[in-house]
Amino acid sequence: HLDSVQFGGAYDGIAGVVCAIEAVRQMAESNEKPFYSIEVIATNDEEGSRFKSGLFTGKVMDAQLTVEDIQRYKDADGVSVYAAMKEYGLNPDEIANHKRTDIKAFIEVHIEQGPILEAEQKDIGVVDIIVGIKRALVTVNGRADHIGTMPMNMRMDAVEAATKVIANIGDRSRQYPLAVATVGNLNVAPNIVNIIPSQVTYTVDFRGTTQDEIDAQYKGMLEDLQAVTVRFHMSFDVAETLNVIPVELSKDFRSYIKESCTKRGYSNMNIVSGAGHDAQVFGARMPAAMIFVPSIGGRSHCPEENTDARTLAMASNVAYDTLLRICAEKRL
Amino acid sequence: HLDSVQFGGAYDGIAGVVCAIEAVRQMAESNEKPFYSIEVIATNDEEGSRFKSGLFTGKVMDAQLTVEDIQRYKDADGVSVYAAMKEYGLNPDEIANHKRTDIKAFIEVHIEQGPILEAEQKDIGVVDIIVGIKRALVTVNGRADHIGTMPMNMRMDAVEAATKVIANIGDRSRQYPLAVATVGNLNVAPNIVNIIPSQVTYTVDFRGTTQDEIDAQYKGMLEDLQAVTVRFHMSFDVAETLNVIPVELSKDFRSYIKESCTKRGYSNMNIVSGAGHDAQVFGARMPAAMIFVPSIGGRSHCPEENTDARTLAMASNVAYDTLLRICAEKRL
Repeated sequence: HLDSVQFGGAYDGIAGVVCAIEAVRQMAESNEKPFYSIEVIATNDEEGSRFKSGLFTGKVMDAQLTVEDIQRYKDADGVSVYAAMKEYGLNPDEIANHKRTDIKAFIEVHIEQGPILEAEQKDIGVVDIIVGIKRALVTVNGRADHIGTMPMNMRMDAVEAATKVIANIGDRSRQYPLAVATVGNLNVAPNIVNIIPSQVTYTVDFRGTTQDEIDAQYKGMLEDLQAVTVRFHMSFDVAETLNVIPVELSKDFRSYIKESCTKRGYSNMNIVSGAGHDAQVFGARMPAAMIFVPSIGGRSHCPEENTDARTLAMASNVAYDTLLRICAEKRL
Repeated sequence: HLDSVQFGGAYDGIAGVVCAIEAVRQMAESNEKPFYSIEVIATNDEEGSRFKSGLFTGKVMDAQLTVEDIQRYKDADGVSVYAAMKEYGLNPDEIANHKRTDIKAFIEVHIEQGPILEAEQKDIGVVDIIVGIKRALVTVNGRADHIGTMPMNMRMDAVEAATKVIANIGDRSRQYPLAVATVGNLNVAPNIVNIIPSQVTYTVDFRGTTQDEIDAQYKGMLEDLQAVTVRFHMSFDVAETLNVIPVELSKDFRSYIKESCTKRGYSNMNIVSGAGHDAQVFGARMPAAMIFVPSIGGRSHCPEENTDARTLAMASNVAYDTLLRICAEKRL
């Protein structure tokens, strides 16, 4: 994908697009005649940073988005996807008419964005599962009062209530080896040193390799929200903003990737993707694969994000081999 | 005092100034000749909202503030008290030369700002102690990473660490009947839904009737900060921004106030002030008294702040009686 996050790095997404072009360049140079047509797709709005949606291109190619959806997704200035498309000279009213039924398989190269391949000293990661994601916007409603004069047992402190809930989220997630949970955005109102906070809003993102572990984390948070707001006579609202199921990638494609690594002498390992990717949308309806390359220091979504050009070249070679191998099967 | 807080109400401070003027008006009308000179003081920057200091006038009258202090206290735009005074046509270089040694006693009328007088259906509160305050700015330093790919046991999540500390602050405070603790201002960086937070800064305000209970709350938070940042290999900084000792008000003046209430048939009770007040600075070096009036709904530091004019008139009467009573003693 072409987009990144605010204050992000230079590799997330775009490195995979470059590797895809390189694999196809090798294909052209080699004079191989692939059985299937090969198309490089550079998707946009995979991150959902501006409109809080995400996986945009894949969803459009699966006709998952309606005109109503893209009118509802808005940026911080209230500009909808619909309005932004129109201003860019696109026709948003046609959004539901771009279903691609001619795509039979999908391969994506991507930086790992985590520390595992580097720690295990592997050149290539073969992705087994892309985790599912449940994301919600939580509002905890309290009451503004004077911080000195309102006794502790009469106050409705939104920061006290919200932190008692958030403090448990990480440890609950640690009960599942591959699950993660994060509160990335948190805002306090009125946010003044000598006023008891009347409202806290926060985003929470739960990920896991099974829907059960995602649901268990989410349910645990809701139970904490319920208990703490009952204790303080407060209220809360939860709005689900993203819901993506875990997707297992093609067993066959994984074995083709491993064969290529073995042939070329690239060290490799199976890995779970903790990040959502375009392959998740495509992989839900067709055989799909992901080839991971190590992130230096495991850093991602930050300016320090970096990947060795050497491993990106390896990933391009593996992608090229895998495309040829898929074409050899002629049974998609 | 004349100042209030941002998004505050119309009674905190200014109602007391009006009552003081009314008490002196009664004195003038009654043709009483008080033994001591009586001066109405309308202080400013008691709240410290703009420059994060507070109790400004009282401190100046006690020569507690130096030119260096008022150059250090700055507002959100980086304007110092020094610069603001200069722009207003005052001479900040003279700040240390305004010690008032001629003041022998201090009486302050103030709204309660809490729910106690209303709950107990009392017209007047006789303040025994003004709580001490310790206020600090805490910074918890983590590391920004991708929220999906960084395993839970390798992340340095500033929101997870900070909320694990803040979640305990309230319950620790509840161990002391009259102590309170509040995190009023909390900011997350980079504060983006899909980036692990790298930094949380928050203000914390501890209050209590004894220095021991204030120190115990503060120490408890420091221990939690220490434990949680060791657990996650993170760091923290704490800067103390306000330190005011608890002050017991004059026993004699309290009995004069009670005598006045009894004489006039006003219901009354002894009370602790959970808010800091100018009487705290004056009370540390001379006999001082505070006369509280009920806040409707216990609300304060918010637009709903309100007090019945009837009880403000009662407080003026009690202040008048108390001034006369003090003058009768002629032994300050």
